[in-house]
Amino acid sequence: MSKVKIGLCQIPEVGTKEGDLKIAAEYVKKAVDQGAQIVSLPEMFCCTYANEYFWPAAEEKGGYIWSALRDIAIENKVYFIGGSMPEVEDGKLYNTSFVFDPDGNQIARHRKMHMFDIDVKGGQFFKESDTFTPGNDVTVFDTPYGKVGVEICFDIRFFEQTRLMALQGADIVISPGEFNMSTGPVHWELLFRARALDNQIFVCGCAAARNVNGPYVSWGNSLIVDPWGTVVAKLDGEAGIIVQEIDTDMITNVRNQIPVMSALRTDVYEIVKK
Amino acid sequence: MSKVKIGLCQIPEVGTKEGDLKIAAEYVKKAVDQGAQIVSLPEMFCCTYANEYFWPAAEEKGGYIWSALRDIAIENKVYFIGGSMPEVEDGKLYNTSFVFDPDGNQIARHRKMHMFDIDVKGGQFFKESDTFTPGNDVTVFDTPYGKVGVEICFDIRFFEQTRLMALQGADIVISPGEFNMSTGPVHWELLFRARALDNQIFVCGCAAARNVNGPYVSWGNSLIVDPWGTVVAKLDGEAGIIVQEIDTDMITNVRNQIPVMSALRTDVYEIVKK
Repeated sequence: MSKVKIGLCQIPEVGTKEGDLKIAAEYVKKAVDQGAQIVSLPEMFCCTYANEYFWPAAEEKGGYIWSALRDIAIENKVYFIGGSMPEVEDGKLYNTSFVFDPDGNQIARHRKMHMFDIDVKGGQFFKESDTFTPGNDVTVFDTPYGKVGVEICFDIRFFEQTRLMALQGADIVISPGEFNMSTGPVHWELLFRARALDNQIFVCGCAAARNVNGPYVSWGNSLIVDPWGTVVAKLDGEAGIIVQEIDTDMITNVRNQIPVMSALRTDVYEIVKK
Repeated sequence: MSKVKIGLCQIPEVGTKEGDLKIAAEYVKKAVDQGAQIVSLPEMFCCTYANEYFWPAAEEKGGYIWSALRDIAIENKVYFIGGSMPEVEDGKLYNTSFVFDPDGNQIARHRKMHMFDIDVKGGQFFKESDTFTPGNDVTVFDTPYGKVGVEICFDIRFFEQTRLMALQGADIVISPGEFNMSTGPVHWELLFRARALDNQIFVCGCAAARNVNGPYVSWGNSLIVDPWGTVVAKLDGEAGIIVQEIDTDMITNVRNQIPVMSALRTDVYEIVKK
């Protein structure tokens, strides 16, 4: 099957786990009602995006958030990327995306690999590495619609990671992520377009809706970029849903027109996963 | 010295080696008169961009074209990237950029590493690999203004190459290149902005002016992108010159704000040069 409908839920922040999960469930149902077969939530959708909130909200795999996400997958019979959540394991905190199949089986887990430390002059300051431990795995999972890779937000700046997913056969990469009002306007779309064009795959970003009263103001602008580097669907800062059919046959088509992935000079250089 | 003026000569095609070299010399002089300290010509500036013209125009290092380029460097006392030319060595043809210092010493030689084979539906067809042998070297050279990397046109699609130059300390990457009327409007600026932002360096593209009557119609649009991913100077399709001062201190500044180059997970992945 080369055609698949992607659903990206740009949900507003409610401010309680229960409230955030309830609205997440509503948005996913709306996306699936419109035909979405693979659906994503935003990064840290169930926790205010500020370092002091992460530890208090943290849970283990199998806890309340994880179970609620699994239930959403089952109820909607959908491949479901549960945005990301603060996951604790062995006393360490991770920014983790759990992925479920339509039967509620956890089929992937991505832990954000690059810590978001930023200090923009006159703009955003954030130091994720004060709180989180980075993951070490490149994450790709199978669906009947093709291979799907997951990375989280800041990961998108490091093209090695997306390339490794593409080399593992990813047709679609989905990145829950929150750029801010400093970097969002200048970098968000550029980075997603570049990752898509460079690897000749579909790349999707799923952000939270903008909340100008929160400690971290999300740029929003959830989007889907095709293998030619063209933005095929995009929201602005407001809450909303993208449901967009894509055709993964376009990957072969574009690679035949401009043979990038087959012209890599792996005799001269190579990205190695350690 | 952190400030340097870059000159990009978007020259028109004359159609004879002598004519192309004469107009190249005029443009370089104009750029240097405006203060340019590092100047580049476009890809294959002295040869119509079509496979049947490359072998007849090909010369060895030290030949007529090479000597004329060296003379231009000496006369203008400038660091000079001589665009690229069809270079023959041991019976093989390369798309080669020779680089000279202000005394006319050849200080670098880049041979295009990725062969431009393209077959866009309803658009451009070109198969460079029918004619050329690819080079195998990543090319960075020293100047008093910082380290400068050179790649050629299609090379820019392969981010491994630009990353390797950045990891070798390149502050500025200059790419003589001709995108066409199919890929130029959608991919040219995107790719240069991505390479600059991803590596937090300056990246410059130097194209030939558009000739709508030639066998290969250049998109033109020579440009300079800064480490924040912003286009700081750009031409359209017409002949012209960019002379733009840049400040390489911006590299450190941007890397302090968004630490990408220091946050590479080289414990997890690495680009290796073989």
